[in-house]
Amino acid sequence: MNGMPALRFERGRVRLDSVPIPKPAPGEALLEVVLAGVCATDLEITKGYMDFSGTLGHEFIGRVVSVARRRGAAGADRASPGDRVAGEINLPCRACPVCRSGLGNHCPTRAVLGILGKDGAFAQYVTLPLENLHPVPGTIPDEKAVFIEPLAAALEVLEQVDVRKSDRLLVIGDGRLGLLVAMVLARASGRVTLVGRHPEKMARVEGLGVRTVPVRRAGTLRRAFDVVVEASGGPEGWDTALAKLRPRGTLVLKTTVHGGRPWNPAPIVIDEITVVGSRCGPFPKAIEWLEKGWVDPTPLVAARFGLREGLRALEEARTPGVLKVLIQP
Amino acid sequence: MNGMPALRFERGRVRLDSVPIPKPAPGEALLEVVLAGVCATDLEITKGYMDFSGTLGHEFIGRVVSVARRRGAAGADRASPGDRVAGEINLPCRACPVCRSGLGNHCPTRAVLGILGKDGAFAQYVTLPLENLHPVPGTIPDEKAVFIEPLAAALEVLEQVDVRKSDRLLVIGDGRLGLLVAMVLARASGRVTLVGRHPEKMARVEGLGVRTVPVRRAGTLRRAFDVVVEASGGPEGWDTALAKLRPRGTLVLKTTVHGGRPWNPAPIVIDEITVVGSRCGPFPKAIEWLEKGWVDPTPLVAARFGLREGLRALEEARTPGVLKVLIQP
Repeated sequence: MNGMPALRFERGRVRLDSVPIPKPAPGEALLEVVLAGVCATDLEITKGYMDFSGTLGHEFIGRVVSVARRRGAAGADRASPGDRVAGEINLPCRACPVCRSGLGNHCPTRAVLGILGKDGAFAQYVTLPLENLHPVPGTIPDEKAVFIEPLAAALEVLEQVDVRKSDRLLVIGDGRLGLLVAMVLARASGRVTLVGRHPEKMARVEGLGVRTVPVRRAGTLRRAFDVVVEASGGPEGWDTALAKLRPRGTLVLKTTVHGGRPWNPAPIVIDEITVVGSRCGPFPKAIEWLEKGWVDPTPLVAARFGLREGLRALEEARTPGVLKVLIQP
Repeated sequence: MNGMPALRFERGRVRLDSVPIPKPAPGEALLEVVLAGVCATDLEITKGYMDFSGTLGHEFIGRVVSVARRRGAAGADRASPGDRVAGEINLPCRACPVCRSGLGNHCPTRAVLGILGKDGAFAQYVTLPLENLHPVPGTIPDEKAVFIEPLAAALEVLEQVDVRKSDRLLVIGDGRLGLLVAMVLARASGRVTLVGRHPEKMARVEGLGVRTVPVRRAGTLRRAFDVVVEASGGPEGWDTALAKLRPRGTLVLKTTVHGGRPWNPAPIVIDEITVVGSRCGPFPKAIEWLEKGWVDPTPLVAARFGLREGLRALEEARTPGVLKVLIQP
């Protein structure tokens, strides 16, 4: 009765395992996973990224099963048993100088759910500190709420860059994150262009007023964009971005590129470009956007699998052209 | 009577030539060069950078000889014969969309004094549009005024980054520009560190409260700098900068690196770093700083040559450990 299924990555391979149900530490909640999403980072981890070993998964919503209170702990009122919640993925130490300076998401000894030193959400149960939890209003259905984490990451662009209605915006990459970014930016500006490889993916945002351009025709775009968001993860994305930004424009980097390649930073200096690295974002804003209907990520859902079909779910997510794959324990 | 000496770079070599005195076009002034400075960019040009062909030199002060007025032209009241002036180096078209958006320094068809399509200041005379000229108050001696252009470039860091008194600042590179940046930052914050290769160069800023660290000991610095200015022009500077910036810190790139090298942008995303390319800066601010004595660049002067010794001047500027070399026509 104390075992549960979990999709784990260990010693270079993924397998469905049976592991003990985790016990929440003081200040943590035990959550039953309601729905989880497969992210590109999960797929990178299965190729060795971050040297992670443990249960995969960091995009999810869950229901609070129990809470291990700690006297005077922060976030104690964040969630009660029965609440449906989204969970922030960084677990900072909350004591070091970086944490005390308010940058807990960058704590050098942090754990990260399903990515670094903390078992993730592709399992029946998961634990998280109460401070990490955000109750999800009942008006947001599960298959929208499961996008809270990646939607927050997309919304981070608007936190970091002051986007005006008249700004010309370019998103490079028609993967899950690129499309979410395009959806978000389409509400901030009437002049959003998306460059990608897959017409069938880009079609998901055309109805929102986003102009879509196949990557082979990107060369025809004018060098006049105020902001470019690189979300392709491909090294060519960087070159395209610098080639299409206006002088003094802003390049937002949403994805990392693995492996080195020759580079030339001269255009950054000559054109006085600002490059902004962008990672996690604000959960409360993502919840607000979903609640108010400002963005609807459900057209991105490609398939839904049970947890016991987890290996097939990852396989499906890896298939070129497939968007968001959900896992339901 | 119509010839003048000029230090020119043509067909891959530098030589002292005799050329006609230039005629100011309508809206331009003819200037007699009073004093000029050799910049790293001049030395790069003699290696082929920018494919420039013509008279070298862009750091200078001059005296107005004559003005070719143009009816209704902007800047007509900028200078009169006899005025001592500093000159901005970019010559934008003032008509294209980039110019009309206020970014004339980035005009795609601009000329740049002594760098791109416009004869420079290592000559007895030079011409520049009236809009480019800034009268220099008599209280600033020539050998300070000749630093207006590079000092403006150093001050641009303060225009682009909001530096607070308590910020920890790191400057990488003890060349001419790195030392000017360290001098400027030392007035903005009490916590400036300079990393360089030459103890005798770094000694120039130690009296200003700048902590100096030899590059071989840079590894011992804490990863806690709020702002790092890369002014070494070496590829290792980028790695040191990213290794020593705190999460969400700012990297200001002041110099370009020639040639490609393998790179990994992952730290920019993971640590949410902002990278700011920084080029030319505000002449009026540089004049104000010199007038108020907030910065004294004269300790950077290494040698002074006549224009007819121009080849020796470039040779001297190329010598490792030598700081600013001046050329006096």
